[in-house]
Amino acid sequence: MPELIRITDPADPRLADYVGLTDMELRKRTEPESGLFIAEGEKVIQRAVAAGHPMRSMLLSDKWLPLMTPVLEETGATAYVGSPRLLEEVTGFHVHRGALAAMQRKPLPEPAAVLDGARRIVVLEGVNNHTNVGAIFRGAAALGMDGVLLAPDCADPLYRRSVRVSMGTVFAIPWTKLEPWPQALDLLAEHGYRRIALTPAPDAVDLRELRLAKTEKAALFLGSEGEGLSPRAFAACDLKVRIPMAAGVDSLNVAAAAAVACYALAD
Amino acid sequence: MPELIRITDPADPRLADYVGLTDMELRKRTEPESGLFIAEGEKVIQRAVAAGHPMRSMLLSDKWLPLMTPVLEETGATAYVGSPRLLEEVTGFHVHRGALAAMQRKPLPEPAAVLDGARRIVVLEGVNNHTNVGAIFRGAAALGMDGVLLAPDCADPLYRRSVRVSMGTVFAIPWTKLEPWPQALDLLAEHGYRRIALTPAPDAVDLRELRLAKTEKAALFLGSEGEGLSPRAFAACDLKVRIPMAAGVDSLNVAAAAAVACYALAD
Repeated sequence: MPELIRITDPADPRLADYVGLTDMELRKRTEPESGLFIAEGEKVIQRAVAAGHPMRSMLLSDKWLPLMTPVLEETGATAYVGSPRLLEEVTGFHVHRGALAAMQRKPLPEPAAVLDGARRIVVLEGVNNHTNVGAIFRGAAALGMDGVLLAPDCADPLYRRSVRVSMGTVFAIPWTKLEPWPQALDLLAEHGYRRIALTPAPDAVDLRELRLAKTEKAALFLGSEGEGLSPRAFAACDLKVRIPMAAGVDSLNVAAAAAVACYALAD
Repeated sequence: MPELIRITDPADPRLADYVGLTDMELRKRTEPESGLFIAEGEKVIQRAVAAGHPMRSMLLSDKWLPLMTPVLEETGATAYVGSPRLLEEVTGFHVHRGALAAMQRKPLPEPAAVLDGARRIVVLEGVNNHTNVGAIFRGAAALGMDGVLLAPDCADPLYRRSVRVSMGTVFAIPWTKLEPWPQALDLLAEHGYRRIALTPAPDAVDLRELRLAKTEKAALFLGSEGEGLSPRAFAACDLKVRIPMAAGVDSLNVAAAAAVACYALAD
């Protein structure tokens, strides 16, 4: 049986992993430092466990115990059980999904390891919004991409909102940071990847005209919605493509643009 | 010069249009009833005005007056000016985008009028999330769709969040409600539209295999992320298509799926 510890004091120091979950600035600092991330809801927690992330503990209300008992038994993690109100006091929000798990990060793979095993990958630069990062992962995973490489200025894929929006696909698709930036960009050419920048620039090739051989390795570069890719990232690419847009419309959301481009690149 | 009225009392009855903007249940009832919607931020307000929506009034802080004066002069609307704190007290949230406009709805066109002028349209059923509706509009407009028809169970495209996420494209692309539902679905066949249902069903045609003649009229049916299209909507379609998915991934977000399908349908 998993160890159950009933909590009545929201200041209980054993709940330190769960304090102030809505304070993004705080969590952005503390989570990577302590090798922690938070998974919420049954499916996402199960996917994190299945991907080999050790569970530090779980925080949940009584109602969710029966549903979560199998994963608690599998991991042997301690479960802190409290009222919905206590959960809200600790975390700063009403925990709709009933259960939160404090999970241990794993060392990120080397970029070369992601590139070696892949044929179609996504490279993100400047995508600093957690919702967009999660949505891009979900689309990339669904549409058959084999990996994601992130410039250091991107939002953390393991931040709670990224994980949730990704529907747990951050645990399914190999990813890592591309560091040191921008020098590590050279790896793409060394590994034989054709580097394709997505841009709204009118002189770019229409995405519909892009033809890739099935065996060809390709890396799709995506920048932030506002700024787009940096000159350095463009310089590392050998082709610019654009999604054909109707007159008078500025742009697609970056996650929608990513999905369209991944669809076009997949085979 | 536009009329400027300085407001210091958050209970001022002249601000009735702006009260409780974060209370979605309240606004969902009151806005359509009184023919009102709220546009926020310079670009979106300008697009609403450009689309011919009369402005009932504007609520803004001093800092935003210079930027908004041209559109106030153009419309002749009264501007209520208050401190950022007053704006927050009235509306229930911190108004990042500085200016809110209470706009007048216009009568929706008949579905036949949308169908007549179009060649590629989107039909939404059960998409009851405002963010998704806004994102679908943005994608449909950017990717060259000519119109959107909504079943009565969809979220309001003129609700504040829909408008914002759509980047104002709800004012650019013709749309209306498809009523009476489901009888009005017959209009699509009568107007010569090929009706294409997007579904994850494995027996559906791979979207990549879909070939449409340039002159062919086509309607893309999209359901909600959870439930999908109803049997009635499927019955009104003559073809099912699916986006090819990688193994082990459930689905795309409905807005990403919509963007991919609109891209594939456009020419």
